[in-house]
Amino acid sequence: MTSIGIFGSMGRMGQAIAAVAPSLGAQVAGGADMGDNPVDLARKADVLVDFSAPAALEAHLAAARAAWTPIMVGTTGLGAHHHALIDAAAAEIAVLQTGNTSVGVGLLARLVREAAARLGADWDIEIVEMHHRNKADAPSGTALILGNAAAHGIGTTLTEAGVSDRAGLTGPRADGTIGMASLRGGSVIGDHSVIFATAGERIELTHRADDRAIFARGAVQAALWLKGQQPGRYTMDQVLGL
Amino acid sequence: MTSIGIFGSMGRMGQAIAAVAPSLGAQVAGGADMGDNPVDLARKADVLVDFSAPAALEAHLAAARAAWTPIMVGTTGLGAHHHALIDAAAAEIAVLQTGNTSVGVGLLARLVREAAARLGADWDIEIVEMHHRNKADAPSGTALILGNAAAHGIGTTLTEAGVSDRAGLTGPRADGTIGMASLRGGSVIGDHSVIFATAGERIELTHRADDRAIFARGAVQAALWLKGQQPGRYTMDQVLGL
Amino acid sequence: MTSIGIFGSMGRMGQAIAAVAPSLGAQVAGGADMGDNPVDLARKADVLVDFSAPAALEAHLAAARAAWTPIMVGTTGLGAHHHALIDAAAAEIAVLQTGNTSVGVGLLARLVREAAARLGADWDIEIVEMHHRNKADAPSGTALILGNAAAHGIGTTLTEAGVSDRAGLTGPRADGTIGMASLRGGSVIGDHSVIFATAGERIELTHRADDRAIFARGAVQAALWLKGQQPGRYTMDQVLGL
Amino acid sequence: MTSIGIFGSMGRMGQAIAAVAPSLGAQVAGGADMGDNPVDLARKADVLVDFSAPAALEAHLAAARAAWTPIMVGTTGLGAHHHALIDAAAAEIAVLQTGNTSVGVGLLARLVREAAARLGADWDIEIVEMHHRNKADAPSGTALILGNAAAHGIGTTLTEAGVSDRAGLTGPRADGTIGMASLRGGSVIGDHSVIFATAGERIELTHRADDRAIFARGAVQAALWLKGQQPGRYTMDQVLGL
Repeated sequence: MTSIGIFGSMGRMGQAIAAVAPSLGAQVAGGADMGDNPVDLARKADVLVDFSAPAALEAHLAAARAAWTPIMVGTTGLGAHHHALIDAAAAEIAVLQTGNTSVGVGLLARLVREAAARLGADWDIEIVEMHHRNKADAPSGTALILGNAAAHGIGTTLTEAGVSDRAGLTGPRADGTIGMASLRGGSVIGDHSVIFATAGERIELTHRADDRAIFARGAVQAALWLKGQQPGRYTMDQVLGL
Repeated sequence: MTSIGIFGSMGRMGQAIAAVAPSLGAQVAGGADMGDNPVDLARKADVLVDFSAPAALEAHLAAARAAWTPIMVGTTGLGAHHHALIDAAAAEIAVLQTGNTSVGVGLLARLVREAAARLGADWDIEIVEMHHRNKADAPSGTALILGNAAAHGIGTTLTEAGVSDRAGLTGPRADGTIGMASLRGGSVIGDHSVIFATAGERIELTHRADDRAIFARGAVQAALWLKGQQPGRYTMDQVLGL
Repeated sequence: MTSIGIFGSMGRMGQAIAAVAPSLGAQVAGGADMGDNPVDLARKADVLVDFSAPAALEAHLAAARAAWTPIMVGTTGLGAHHHALIDAAAAEIAVLQTGNTSVGVGLLARLVREAAARLGADWDIEIVEMHHRNKADAPSGTALILGNAAAHGIGTTLTEAGVSDRAGLTGPRADGTIGMASLRGGSVIGDHSVIFATAGERIELTHRADDRAIFARGAVQAALWLKGQQPGRYTMDQVLGL
Repeated sequence: MTSIGIFGSMGRMGQAIAAVAPSLGAQVAGGADMGDNPVDLARKADVLVDFSAPAALEAHLAAARAAWTPIMVGTTGLGAHHHALIDAAAAEIAVLQTGNTSVGVGLLARLVREAAARLGADWDIEIVEMHHRNKADAPSGTALILGNAAAHGIGTTLTEAGVSDRAGLTGPRADGTIGMASLRGGSVIGDHSVIFATAGERIELTHRADDRAIFARGAVQAALWLKGQQPGRYTMDQVLGL
């Protein structure tokens, strides 16, 4: 039975992963939070998952490398610096980084990329997401995944194409842009829609997360898949066989 | 048979009104556009409709007053100055001003105000609208109508409560705010949703305009109702009996 | 502090009510399930809630009457016979029966009735609901509540107006009918939409239940309200002040 | 310039095709309706489109074969007999038959098939469509296209898996089924949603037709593509390069 070590074990995702792991044929090797020695955890686990904080990523990757233990990184809010650290670690161990571990979002991102690529420039792309009232950043990490998938499909990047504030005299919509809008309220776990609109018709591709357990299950699924992989950087698409 | 005079008769709405008027028991007295004398039209019509431009409103109201002819103002993009002109005219003639003449939007605004008033402070309010790619302003006039209805329901104004750009580190949602988001793409005539969200549940109140004729029919309906009213300022709610 | 006695205390709703009661200022007087004496529970509780089964309703109402304790009936699948029993009990004690205790559904039913009444015969009414794959009946009790609200608004009954299967050569839609459609899948707690459609426009009034706790909270809220009421039959609208 | 002959030229689709053809680089060779000789039309056209009635299909296919002219069949309500006639004609000329010529539906069907294939048996599939109040059959031809795409994705047929009426005591949802629901009202041109639901999450793939011109444009696009193809039976996927 695969044993999983959890960085950020006291957080909401860490606890959820510990709760679902047994039902998926995994056991918890232990957890480490601020103040704990990450190398101890890395040595006793078959595979690591990290849902802690960006500031702790460097130490967790170093521990994983020191112990030669694969690591799945689910921490959000990463910058270019963090991605460089992940790339460096991936030269020695298997690393998988993702902002969303659900099967549904993984598939949706793939459908979005395909739709964007096939529909062509005459279809405008808009993304709208809704999350609970306590979410502190916008757009959501999942909206960025979907926006990047759409941008990739039309041969650009979300940095180039993304438009996130429409208010006042905006003028007509600029060609090739991807609109991003964020709604906040109540206890919504996460709804995302990607809308493709052209003259006379629309396609809307939507994901609704009804239960946070889907993210924990996906994280365990990713961890199980990651154990035994060669060094390198992997994605949820590969875990999901997409 | 009531005869309607149309300011802005060559515009999209002006033409649509002329097209639907006969089916609703009205006839077109004539039209006036830039360069025409508005008083001539005001004299030969039983009631006027104005779908021209804000800059022409003052002259059109003056003509209506000179001829003692009621006027329905559907021009959008009005400022405080225009509303003061309308109030002044309403002391002498019947005037109805609205940003949306559809029956459905009229009713929805009423339901939104009622829902906001009854649900209480624990329900967050978000409004999202989608229009075609050529719409040059955001949020739409109809979204403002709905936002004002919601604000009125919770005892505030949209100027106070409206939040229209969520991007980056926003922090948790501020209590008592009303989020406004605008999507643009394709040829969408106008979709609007008002979302009320609290812990564990959501109510979504949506209007979809599938055909621009609904706005022309509503304008004619308003004009027919306005003929014979006493001087004063009226609203679509009164036309619709809401 | 009000003490609540729970018939059906081992069921999903019974357990949920026990879990949320303290946070709403109530305590659990105890529970009774099959085999327990309902009169014992009725005597020690300030107010009763029943989420057991239709077959047990008669005994539970009798116990409530014997102890002069108000009772809130949330059991679904009731027939005319059960409603007659409730009416009889309501001559002696306060009784509230409802198929859905959420604040949102209560308000939505009110908005649906109002919209149906105001929009008139030219607007077609359709209701679609989605629930989890294990739900064994269709349409849902909540869809029936909404359908009855719509039927009431247009001056008929759902028994008269409801149409629940459209397949094959149906012919054009019959005037004055209310379409009912049921979707089943996954773990959806309960989504309901009432659609009003006429030439050129649509209004959609939707409720989404994201967490079953809303029903338990509503049941406790109803029980607290019911304690101290005069004998009679009450509705959630009264609890919610709608 | 390609010249298109239109069977059913006086019908709604026939007229719409004639209206859009010039803007897509095609001209109309002429039309034939009941009483006209189809062979005359087939001889003077580069390619034929048929939006008439099932009963006329045999004569139209015979005319196309006699003149060696490719034909695009958009008539709906075809039975097994008609498909056999099409297969026979396809041995001698190029034939394309489809129930929906829009680009968006073509792509959506492809995404649905892919999603169904990748998500696996633990995701339930439901399809809901809405059309105007005068539509006389249910489910729509497009819903059948989407249902067949989903069925194909999970390795079955819609005939096997389709479930179209849920009312009363249905019991839990049967594994491997595809639910079909039809809503009718107002003037809705055609909305279709395919919902994939599993524990804790949902994916919804939706198409909204806002203007009937999309179908006419797609038919012309198909006709232009069909001219010059070898004998055989073709699909919209090939036209759209999907």
